[in-house]
Amino acid sequence: MAVDIESANREALERLCRARPTWTAVRSAGDALALEERTLLHSGPPIEWPRMCGPMQGAVIGATLYEGWAADAEVARKLATSGAIQFAPAHSRGAVAPMAAVISRTMPLLEIEDKANATKSWSFIGTGFGPQLRFGGFSPEVLEKLRWLRDVYAPALVGALEKEGPLDLAATMAQALQMGDEMHMRNAAGTALLARFLAPPLAAVVKDAATLERILRFMTRNNDQFFLAWSMGAAKAAARSIENVEGSTVVSTMARNGVDFGIRVAGLGERWFTAPAAAVAGSYFPGFGPDHANRDVGDSAIMETWGLGGMAMAASPAVVTIVGAKSFSDAVKTSRAMGEICVGRNALFPLAALGEGSPTAIDIRRVAESGIVPSINTAIAHRDAGVGRIIGAGIATPPLEPFVEALGAFADRYLG
Amino acid sequence: MAVDIESANREALERLCRARPTWTAVRSAGDALALEERTLLHSGPPIEWPRMCGPMQGAVIGATLYEGWAADAEVARKLATSGAIQFAPAHSRGAVAPMAAVISRTMPLLEIEDKANATKSWSFIGTGFGPQLRFGGFSPEVLEKLRWLRDVYAPALVGALEKEGPLDLAATMAQALQMGDEMHMRNAAGTALLARFLAPPLAAVVKDAATLERILRFMTRNNDQFFLAWSMGAAKAAARSIENVEGSTVVSTMARNGVDFGIRVAGLGERWFTAPAAAVAGSYFPGFGPDHANRDVGDSAIMETWGLGGMAMAASPAVVTIVGAKSFSDAVKTSRAMGEICVGRNALFPLAALGEGSPTAIDIRRVAESGIVPSINTAIAHRDAGVGRIIGAGIATPPLEPFVEALGAFADRYLG
Repeated sequence: MAVDIESANREALERLCRARPTWTAVRSAGDALALEERTLLHSGPPIEWPRMCGPMQGAVIGATLYEGWAADAEVARKLATSGAIQFAPAHSRGAVAPMAAVISRTMPLLEIEDKANATKSWSFIGTGFGPQLRFGGFSPEVLEKLRWLRDVYAPALVGALEKEGPLDLAATMAQALQMGDEMHMRNAAGTALLARFLAPPLAAVVKDAATLERILRFMTRNNDQFFLAWSMGAAKAAARSIENVEGSTVVSTMARNGVDFGIRVAGLGERWFTAPAAAVAGSYFPGFGPDHANRDVGDSAIMETWGLGGMAMAASPAVVTIVGAKSFSDAVKTSRAMGEICVGRNALFPLAALGEGSPTAIDIRRVAESGIVPSINTAIAHRDAGVGRIIGAGIATPPLEPFVEALGAFADRYLG
Repeated sequence: MAVDIESANREALERLCRARPTWTAVRSAGDALALEERTLLHSGPPIEWPRMCGPMQGAVIGATLYEGWAADAEVARKLATSGAIQFAPAHSRGAVAPMAAVISRTMPLLEIEDKANATKSWSFIGTGFGPQLRFGGFSPEVLEKLRWLRDVYAPALVGALEKEGPLDLAATMAQALQMGDEMHMRNAAGTALLARFLAPPLAAVVKDAATLERILRFMTRNNDQFFLAWSMGAAKAAARSIENVEGSTVVSTMARNGVDFGIRVAGLGERWFTAPAAAVAGSYFPGFGPDHANRDVGDSAIMETWGLGGMAMAASPAVVTIVGAKSFSDAVKTSRAMGEICVGRNALFPLAALGEGSPTAIDIRRVAESGIVPSINTAIAHRDAGVGRIIGAGIATPPLEPFVEALGAFADRYLG
């Protein structure tokens, strides 16, 4: 059977480069995904409760309490252990969840649409500073933030978006990249641009001054990664366009559940290829170190799948210190190395230091041949359920095996 | 008479580098500067009405109408011609005015304080998009914007600042530089960070929703240079610290009135050295070209005086296209060339592409010896009074003569 891999990969690159995601709506997971009662979508490749890492078990407990399926953490844990809760990867439903987050029915999601490729995606919305569900927290404080997001903040976003939207995320992210974001571990510019977009319509639709002030304060204080939900949704909408490109060796999904790292490949559909997730080499907040760290976790590696994050390190002098890299010249080297494993460059995301677009469309053949794996910028979660904290940030070097295994499967299917 | 120029210049550099300007207040020019009735402060070196360029004459007419000194433009023009209005450089009062702007008694000014050097400065506040006083406009639309600024916007800023301030401009600008602003022709990040800082307290202090929405919209739509008023105020506060450094050959002021370009030197006090202002090499908005352009104008070259703007081109891939430069590598070359005429580097403003701080403290000796003049990023105003429009942006290469002449005067004073 003849397969034109080069042509298929060019098609995949073209789809990733022409994607122009826009933010069109905020809808509950039940509404947007028809997510069933007692079903939770988690980050990364498939995993069941017993094997889940601490922070993901914590997030499951948090979502169970938030949905009212259990009255306390102990009951929630028993419910999960009993098999009464169904689990599926967010990626299997066109959605993305950051870190150890899980998505439940009443949670509000961003809806992102890419008309250029006729795709849609949905993204979990973060709740800012302090203990968080996405880091495994389930304290009353964490649950209160989730309820405020659902009952106050999300309706305000809906109103603002109806008045002012949709928001062109491709243009916003292109501008943010020019402003030093690599869009994975630095979204400071994206967040500022989002606040700039939202503030005037929010002033019009939120009638209570104290509520408006709290909303604006939430978006603009200690919350520089807030835009990551939008970045991830945009990247997922783009990546969905290549989830089935016959004959292509381009990676369509890269994700981690805190135990396994997994990829899917454009020419191999829904199948996951996994290996144990990496420890993250990074820098830690005071009082924390590698002993407290969970392994690499979250769907945010969708950023690297779309040519951002580690691929776009050279756009972001400021992320260098965040992820604990040595210097900006190392960041430039990283982007150059990533160029070796990618099919092409995305002109939407120019890297001035390299004089070209960001490396885009990871080719499993090049990864397997060079041994160079995608460099993933990431936050580090505390390993224990319930702590709910980010304890550092760094660079994850994922295992090579899934790429090699996928290449074998590709050969079996297309060249066998 | 023995003079230790190197030591004096190190002192000047040290003052410029340790400056940490903060935004502390908004006050009228009458209140802040005790600005007299029928006195106008203009940008650039000293100039009287007959020699003023078109846009500055337009701004004088605008300010005269705004203050109610004349009922129409014709009467205003006669008043100016009659000698009934006094003119002085804004710089002579510790203030700065962008482009062809003039400052009159009831105009609100930003008050900036640098505790590290015990200086204060005051800065004219821009009124955004469309016809503007600072480009020579005096239409009812221009005057209405100035009144809205005075009566609505400035009081809101005062309230927000009382609730949330002061704002650390040094930190804000350092962050904006990491976000691709060179702080002269690109202040997009600075403006977004300012809006981020102001939005929550504005929501608390502005009681009327429609007014609040207008204020937020004004700051966040088509107004990316809004922060320039803050940048200029900060740079002026820093530069004031070297207005009298005995024995120093460092430039303390660089400014243009649209007819003359002028400098002052740390070791030579208040004395101006001038030559005809340059034409700006730039790119024009559709329908406009060099024939419509006024010569280089405005106090905004205070940015280059503090090591930003053209000095910091290498921080700003995005400004390259704005000012019509060829490529980012040209921008890097510009910053390198500027390094040759400066005493040192400011670590507060790192240029990742060069691996060092931005070139700071222009030494007239190095300028005279190398023939390299400061490269100034600038907007281009329409040359006719009353048009009131920006018609392009580019790079001004100021005349060498004032630097050479100042060096002669320095030799006369210190080495004669």
